[in-house]
Amino acid sequence: MMLVVTYDVDTTNASGQKRLRKVAKICERYGMRVQNSVFEVLFDAAQLVVLKHELEKIIDTEQDSVRFYRLGNSYERRIETMGKRPRVEAGGALIF
Amino acid sequence: MMLVVTYDVDTTNASGQKRLRKVAKICERYGMRVQNSVFEVLFDAAQLVVLKHELEKIIDTEQDSVRFYRLGNSYERRIETMGKRPRVEAGGALIF
Repeated sequence: MMLVVTYDVDTTNASGQKRLRKVAKICERYGMRVQNSVFEVLFDAAQLVVLKHELEKIIDTEQDSVRFYRLGNSYERRIETMGKRPRVEAGGALIF
Repeated sequence: MMLVVTYDVDTTNASGQKRLRKVAKICERYGMRVQNSVFEVLFDAAQLVVLKHELEKIIDTEQDSVRFYRLGNSYERRIETMGKRPRVEAGGALIF
């Protein structure tokens, strides 16, 4: 299934930048960074548990916001883009 | 139907900040800003056409990226959050 992860963090301070880098590193292991703080992840239920557990350890729950949007299996029809595109669209390089 | 709009723009320059403000203003007319550059919008087909048309006039298609994720009607079960939450969750203050 496709999951979209959006991460809102204050990157004007060094610790926020560091957390964003860590979150990106984890999400990129599971999927692709399509915008600076938006990740499209193909996952199964077990991977989602691991992903959330890893993110919980990194984020500052008082300051940061993470939102998860489940697009399901037929996700292609749910995604549209405008403007600059990432180098590789999801479903291309995303192999698990 | 619920649409998630994510907007990636370089806010380190003034013109990028201005475009983000304009995009936020439009999206907030249709829905709610849940993160700095993520908006959850309840829309019908006609509103979506207008929204896209308005965004096309603002964004820099060479530099900015907009992604639209259609969550459909039963969107509550597709959304999960972690960390800081927006003051009003979608479905609360969103009335059209």
